[in-house]
Amino acid sequence: MIKKYTYGTPFETEAVVVDIKAESTPEYGTVSCENGFCFEYQMEKQDTVFGLGESNRGINKRGYLYISNCTDDPEHMEHKVSLYGAHNFIVVSGKKSFGLFVDYPATVCFDIGYTHSDILKITCDDDNLNLYVIEGESAYVIVKQFRRLIGKSYIPPKFAFGYAQSRWGYVTKEDYREVVREYQKYHIPLDMIYMDIDYMQDFKDFTLNQQNFNDFTEFVKEMKQNHIRLIPIIDAGVKIEKGYSVYEEGVKNNYFCKREDGSDFVGAVWPNDTHFPDVLNKEARKWFGSHYKVLTEQGIEGFWNDMNEPAIFYTPEGIQKLKGNMKEFIDKEPTKEDVWAMRDELRYLSNNPSDYKIFYHHVDGKKIRHDKVHNLYGYNMTRAAAEGLEEIENHKRYLLFSRSSYIGMHRYGGIWTGDNMSWWSHLLLNIKMMPSLNMCGFLYVGADLGGFGADTTRELLFRWLAFGIFTPLMRNHSAGGTRRQECYQFERTEEFKNLIDVRYRLIPYLYSEYMKAALQDDMYFKPLAFVYPEDEIAREIEDQLLIGNEIMIAPVYTQNAKGRCVYLPEQMMMLKFLGNGTIAVDTLEKGYHYVNVDLNEVVLFVRKGCCIPVAEAAECVEKINTKNMVLYGYSESEYFLYEDDGVTKEYQKDCKVLKKG
Amino acid sequence: MIKKYTYGTPFETEAVVVDIKAESTPEYGTVSCENGFCFEYQMEKQDTVFGLGESNRGINKRGYLYISNCTDDPEHMEHKVSLYGAHNFIVVSGKKSFGLFVDYPATVCFDIGYTHSDILKITCDDDNLNLYVIEGESAYVIVKQFRRLIGKSYIPPKFAFGYAQSRWGYVTKEDYREVVREYQKYHIPLDMIYMDIDYMQDFKDFTLNQQNFNDFTEFVKEMKQNHIRLIPIIDAGVKIEKGYSVYEEGVKNNYFCKREDGSDFVGAVWPNDTHFPDVLNKEARKWFGSHYKVLTEQGIEGFWNDMNEPAIFYTPEGIQKLKGNMKEFIDKEPTKEDVWAMRDELRYLSNNPSDYKIFYHHVDGKKIRHDKVHNLYGYNMTRAAAEGLEEIENHKRYLLFSRSSYIGMHRYGGIWTGDNMSWWSHLLLNIKMMPSLNMCGFLYVGADLGGFGADTTRELLFRWLAFGIFTPLMRNHSAGGTRRQECYQFERTEEFKNLIDVRYRLIPYLYSEYMKAALQDDMYFKPLAFVYPEDEIAREIEDQLLIGNEIMIAPVYTQNAKGRCVYLPEQMMMLKFLGNGTIAVDTLEKGYHYVNVDLNEVVLFVRKGCCIPVAEAAECVEKINTKNMVLYGYSESEYFLYEDDGVTKEYQKDCKVLKKG
Repeated sequence: MIKKYTYGTPFETEAVVVDIKAESTPEYGTVSCENGFCFEYQMEKQDTVFGLGESNRGINKRGYLYISNCTDDPEHMEHKVSLYGAHNFIVVSGKKSFGLFVDYPATVCFDIGYTHSDILKITCDDDNLNLYVIEGESAYVIVKQFRRLIGKSYIPPKFAFGYAQSRWGYVTKEDYREVVREYQKYHIPLDMIYMDIDYMQDFKDFTLNQQNFNDFTEFVKEMKQNHIRLIPIIDAGVKIEKGYSVYEEGVKNNYFCKREDGSDFVGAVWPNDTHFPDVLNKEARKWFGSHYKVLTEQGIEGFWNDMNEPAIFYTPEGIQKLKGNMKEFIDKEPTKEDVWAMRDELRYLSNNPSDYKIFYHHVDGKKIRHDKVHNLYGYNMTRAAAEGLEEIENHKRYLLFSRSSYIGMHRYGGIWTGDNMSWWSHLLLNIKMMPSLNMCGFLYVGADLGGFGADTTRELLFRWLAFGIFTPLMRNHSAGGTRRQECYQFERTEEFKNLIDVRYRLIPYLYSEYMKAALQDDMYFKPLAFVYPEDEIAREIEDQLLIGNEIMIAPVYTQNAKGRCVYLPEQMMMLKFLGNGTIAVDTLEKGYHYVNVDLNEVVLFVRKGCCIPVAEAAECVEKINTKNMVLYGYSESEYFLYEDDGVTKEYQKDCKVLKKG
Repeated sequence: MIKKYTYGTPFETEAVVVDIKAESTPEYGTVSCENGFCFEYQMEKQDTVFGLGESNRGINKRGYLYISNCTDDPEHMEHKVSLYGAHNFIVVSGKKSFGLFVDYPATVCFDIGYTHSDILKITCDDDNLNLYVIEGESAYVIVKQFRRLIGKSYIPPKFAFGYAQSRWGYVTKEDYREVVREYQKYHIPLDMIYMDIDYMQDFKDFTLNQQNFNDFTEFVKEMKQNHIRLIPIIDAGVKIEKGYSVYEEGVKNNYFCKREDGSDFVGAVWPNDTHFPDVLNKEARKWFGSHYKVLTEQGIEGFWNDMNEPAIFYTPEGIQKLKGNMKEFIDKEPTKEDVWAMRDELRYLSNNPSDYKIFYHHVDGKKIRHDKVHNLYGYNMTRAAAEGLEEIENHKRYLLFSRSSYIGMHRYGGIWTGDNMSWWSHLLLNIKMMPSLNMCGFLYVGADLGGFGADTTRELLFRWLAFGIFTPLMRNHSAGGTRRQECYQFERTEEFKNLIDVRYRLIPYLYSEYMKAALQDDMYFKPLAFVYPEDEIAREIEDQLLIGNEIMIAPVYTQNAKGRCVYLPEQMMMLKFLGNGTIAVDTLEKGYHYVNVDLNEVVLFVRKGCCIPVAEAAECVEKINTKNMVLYGYSESEYFLYEDDGVTKEYQKDCKVLKKG
């Protein structure tokens, strides 16, 4: 049961696809619109709060503060309140259970028992929004209702379930060839190599570095002969450069965001000064999306949209102010306060809230200040791409995902969880974030495995990859200047092969479960609380997850661990993919078990009465043979295998029931 | 068996108190002195590495990089390699077990399987050092041998086992009185209030703010009538101010660190420009230590020495360079690289390695560049204080601890683990750091409970205090500008009372175990691996600890947890201190157990065959009645209770055996 409450004059975010008539006063909590919007609800001691998609901390969001305000913050330590996405959906689960979706495109503050342990308080700066309240018998039921409200999730091509290597810093063809060569040398499967910003000419969107990629079509072909797809990045900012057609067209047609005075707004990002396409404007969106063709025509089948919070390193306005303050600083004997003021001004020059208040969108004839719709930018940039790609070939699936997002974007692409760090705590955050993202419709998701910033270790990479095996998007990515982290950079590289082989052996199952979740508005990652709500121990476990309907995982996420303690909420069959390629099977009873997991091993637990298909290892997704799979699990169980061509939008072509003897 | 190997001409750190004749080549590993000192050892897969005192990550230090280089870094995320202390002692534990103490006062790099999983590599910039190699049958035995090598640990007065409130930001007497009043209102025990930098006049050491503390002696008395002791901070830097006697004396007698040209080195800290006392110089150390008397004469009985890495906000040299670069910046159209260069220059202005290379110590007629002996500064500042206090009253124990430290300082004072953050991960780091600190001789230790930087939550404070109950130093401290975190700042303050009452009920046991550890060169906090080395599960548990010889604890350190899974390596008796002041007792068998722990409850586990004394709650340490204690634990067990006057250095005065029926 979904009810809608409209306050003021909301901006149409197009997050919701179902038309619901607005009602008057919600039954849950109290709403006040005196100083902006405020929803308050008194929580019971035992209430759990789920949701918020890409946000910090646990699966249970209670006990902290979260601010939906798309932010480029790679060093997101645990006190950070804003990440790259804005996913304003929560479920309060307890004696009374209900979901809330705050459809509001600017900053939303969720104080979930932070200021006062028992008070849930949601506030917005103004009161122009739609509030959806969803009733249901359980958190899981509420989530599935919400998912129907927001429409079907994005479905990638099947190759996107392969393993991908990425690094900010690949410049020449030789850099890419080295990756292929090294992976092939160790027979480690690989389907994609990502192209970070250096492939472009001077960081100009939809261009190729002339020196390195003068015959790009040929190079794409060469890579495909090695069954590797190249996935280039597209950034939000368009370089200001005379003669650069994207820039010229945008200026000419008023497709860029503008300052108050009507001039094109300038923000510095990778190419230095840029303009931002006004992707909230239909025409500009269509125009920007049409450029992806430049690359698809050369054989490209997937993209990642980046820097689309939008991140802004600085603006001319900010630099002018800075220079003024520097002049004053130079002329005095500075105190510590003077020094700190200068330090902070430079520290907060990037992504500065004041910069988001000096540019405007033009939507349906209205001029809207950016900060009022900030959280929609990445969503609409990715929508631009998706709509552009659909124009090119509307039956084909393209790989597409974004850094910044808002609910609604889940229909157009996936997300990676943005720049993270080579921290064990970010591996754990990755684990906890996945089901929350699923609740908000984002199914094609994953984090930078091994960690983007800071230096990884062999062990951290192993453990992170072992979790990444289960994330639809499985990509090893790292920042320039950090320790290299392709598998072949570490001793005993061959040990990585077994790990990544396991991914490919499980793709038939993982893809099948992904497709079922996508087509049935279901979750691919589920917290134990959703499946075992009566089990008090299971209910609060956040470091084990269910993947699809058949398996539970319990990733190792601590340094120097030889294994971990796992809680089984029911009897399960443990499959251990050993280093030698064989699978050890053991039935474990309900309760706690210490499970040894060596670095190159993968452990999963098949739920009672279930079985899963396991294929032979293959060097790429296309070569996975689903004809000779072995079913592992309980005898006399069945598995419904979803299969299709993995390329077109003709879904449910080759499904069948597999029966285990 | 301890062997000493001398390379080059070591600086005498006085870390070691036993005279050992140097031998030629160590049996373990290989040493090279080609480019500085390098020790390399091939680890076995199963080897564990303990030690490194105050350092990041786990109890098992394997798998990462640690650099001994005393650094003021409050935001120590998990990739940080240097913290406030430098404790160069490790134990390799496996088929072959041995300890290593690298007695070297400058930067030491411990690469413990970071670059290559199996290689332990210890490097120093030059090869003037003493290396001690300690053999023993187990890690625990090796630690105890090492502890004899470095001499007896510091013993604080008994009142220092009370609970303390602190906050950077208490300015007036009223601020202190408010703390007392509020704690008394809720009958929450309290023994100390810490005085952060604002008590001083313009941040000048050994002064009192004239406006707020013109009759300080009276105020100290007033507080003592409320059984509260005030514990002021002393910073390393001495303000440059004409007429300020400490400054004038220091300049006159050449007691400050000097530049190459013989002028007094200037570094900005809280008072803006300061000079640093040359505490490595015997005369200067004696002089600096003699000033603590200014405060003891007014009734003060304890101090915390801060900023003694030494932290340096900036130097005139750094500002001059900065201004030059700003001038250039102003004159150009900056690129992103120019902006980042300015940002980084300001970001790294504080604690900049180049500043540590432009000042000198004068030790025994020799001029020594600071960076060559950097890690000894905090140690010797605290030694100055300890020796100064001993001069005042040599039978009295003073409370004394330091932020920066080196092994050797453990004889003169305790340490708090420096500025940390209100992060759950820093609560876990606190837990893991404690036994490592004990290995290195530091027994009087604790972290800022609730977290210093960032905003805490009621729940985090509860869980952190619940662990803090077991740390000798139990202090709630936070930074100015963060959320207030005295217990009375949160709803249902009365729930904190039970928690802190438990501390006082356990002080007889905790103090007794502390004193036994201090007098017998033993550990107060032990990892499970030291006590249950044959138990494969216990061996790698890092989130449970043994406290003294009788109990094990398993702190809750995750948000929204209603309890946790605890592993018992043997049958134990669980004592749960309930919210109503009673104690629930339950015998649990070896293995995993889920234990519910409400926020205001404390759980501990009495080892098989043991018992512990539990007193009634008391409002301060002095009022704890050890005559009517109840023994909890196994029947027919005994407990050896250590008692003394808690004030003088007459130890072992009132020990007795308590027998449980």
